[in-house]
Amino acid sequence: MSLLVTGSIGIDTVESPAGKVVDALGGSSIYFAYASSFFTPVRLVGVVGDDCPPDFLTPLHDNPNIDLGGLEVREGSKTFRWHGKYRDDINERDTVSVDLNVLAEEGPTIPHAFCDSEYVFLANTHPDLQLEMLSQLHGPKFVACDTMDLWIDTECESLMNLLAKVDAVILNDAEAKQLTGETNVVKAGLELGKVVKQYVVIKKGEHGSLLFADGDVYVTIGYPAEHVVDPTGAGDSFAGGLMGYLAAKDASDVSAMRTAMAYGTAVASLELEDFSLNRLIGLSRADIDERLAKIAAIAGFDL
Amino acid sequence: MSLLVTGSIGIDTVESPAGKVVDALGGSSIYFAYASSFFTPVRLVGVVGDDCPPDFLTPLHDNPNIDLGGLEVREGSKTFRWHGKYRDDINERDTVSVDLNVLAEEGPTIPHAFCDSEYVFLANTHPDLQLEMLSQLHGPKFVACDTMDLWIDTECESLMNLLAKVDAVILNDAEAKQLTGETNVVKAGLELGKVVKQYVVIKKGEHGSLLFADGDVYVTIGYPAEHVVDPTGAGDSFAGGLMGYLAAKDASDVSAMRTAMAYGTAVASLELEDFSLNRLIGLSRADIDERLAKIAAIAGFDL
Repeated sequence: MSLLVTGSIGIDTVESPAGKVVDALGGSSIYFAYASSFFTPVRLVGVVGDDCPPDFLTPLHDNPNIDLGGLEVREGSKTFRWHGKYRDDINERDTVSVDLNVLAEEGPTIPHAFCDSEYVFLANTHPDLQLEMLSQLHGPKFVACDTMDLWIDTECESLMNLLAKVDAVILNDAEAKQLTGETNVVKAGLELGKVVKQYVVIKKGEHGSLLFADGDVYVTIGYPAEHVVDPTGAGDSFAGGLMGYLAAKDASDVSAMRTAMAYGTAVASLELEDFSLNRLIGLSRADIDERLAKIAAIAGFDL
Repeated sequence: MSLLVTGSIGIDTVESPAGKVVDALGGSSIYFAYASSFFTPVRLVGVVGDDCPPDFLTPLHDNPNIDLGGLEVREGSKTFRWHGKYRDDINERDTVSVDLNVLAEEGPTIPHAFCDSEYVFLANTHPDLQLEMLSQLHGPKFVACDTMDLWIDTECESLMNLLAKVDAVILNDAEAKQLTGETNVVKAGLELGKVVKQYVVIKKGEHGSLLFADGDVYVTIGYPAEHVVDPTGAGDSFAGGLMGYLAAKDASDVSAMRTAMAYGTAVASLELEDFSLNRLIGLSRADIDERLAKIAAIAGFDL
């Protein structure tokens, strides 16, 4: 089934204990699209400025499963830039600088050819913009969104309005707690479950993820990664693996969601082994399946 | 097979967002013994002072699977006391006061009748004392120990000496990182795996636990607990469930360890639902098995 992602495209500079990359390909829609492309064709909607180097998006152009028909190069605008630095404990990072640039302008238009998309991921941006994107689509089957602390702080009403319209929200544990005022992540997930149409997915980084469905809670382990080079994009890669699997299978029941979360974990655990898309480029679906099998093998136990 | 635990017995005062208990039964050996008693008979070795109220240990006396033959009531000494207060985020706590009392004196003697114990848990105390306890035993089959930040800071050489003599160390993630100087918990576990004879078990609280065996890593989910009343003793209950299962099965291969960790998770997830031993008292093995089945059910996914 058709899968669409709207989100940021960024020129990232990332420093981690493992090294540094300057002006690397990044952004939520980029990681999502590449991760989901292992499962199904994906349509990308996003905007860059005219400062974007011509070969910057080559890895996406080279990927036959990524349709860049929704990519807008906006004249006179500048591409979103982010510079982050991870600490020795790679779970902590500081933002060195951020230039919203084109992300602070009006959003992209979804091309007519994409408006019939059935599976949709609205990556993190202003919730009003996410709502506007959603309104351009012709009755999608399954819509998931992400958000961030900034919108929880400043645009809570719009955000709640958006959440009531989506089938699933995929967010991290700190965001879920902030949004609900709960200190217990399970309570936070159950609370959010009353707002969205179906599912709440809470990402806990190295500690795995939780799925809330109909008042029940399911747990996916975190992959025990020994070599983490750059966690940037792991959350969007998780969402990409998850949504890519659902779209490919054309299913969104609880059983499909649980397998989808394990696939999300598999892709994300590979993605963070190198900077930018470096680790994902050149991987095959078989590599993802191999990681998934490993996750299943290390998580099980005999009753 | 016979199981022995040596560790603290405490008079605890605990405050949490859910309420407060004053002068309640606590201590590492108490939680361990009660948790393991669902699986197998357990021998407890520990010391209290003559200030210990006569009916304080009634829940243990009433438990036919707990042998208090190694309990010493030391004249002229006072029982260990601890007062802790959990914050609104129950993962954080402050120590209000701690009186080591009898724990700062010489350790208990292991009764002759207990020296043939085959499965042994050396709960957290000074590593020299743990080594001395171990030396009193006649060739146990499987020995696990715990430790804490204080000994890692001040008695690192003794601690490393102890670790080289035990089959397994069961400790939390912060301790594993502190002990190895690693910021990555997987690296820390693999590093410690080179020191102990067989296994490293790293507890991550609500985020589950990791097993390191022969360079491989296995993951057990944390139980998604919505109602946490008092996490005190959860770590020792985890160890009790784990060791109780191994002793009952008389096995310590990797497969047994993985099931044992899930059992530890099951018991600990019940223990924290009330203060002190309140939740464990009155439970049956069937209740533990029911929680184990739930853990298996929420952790799995279809490949």
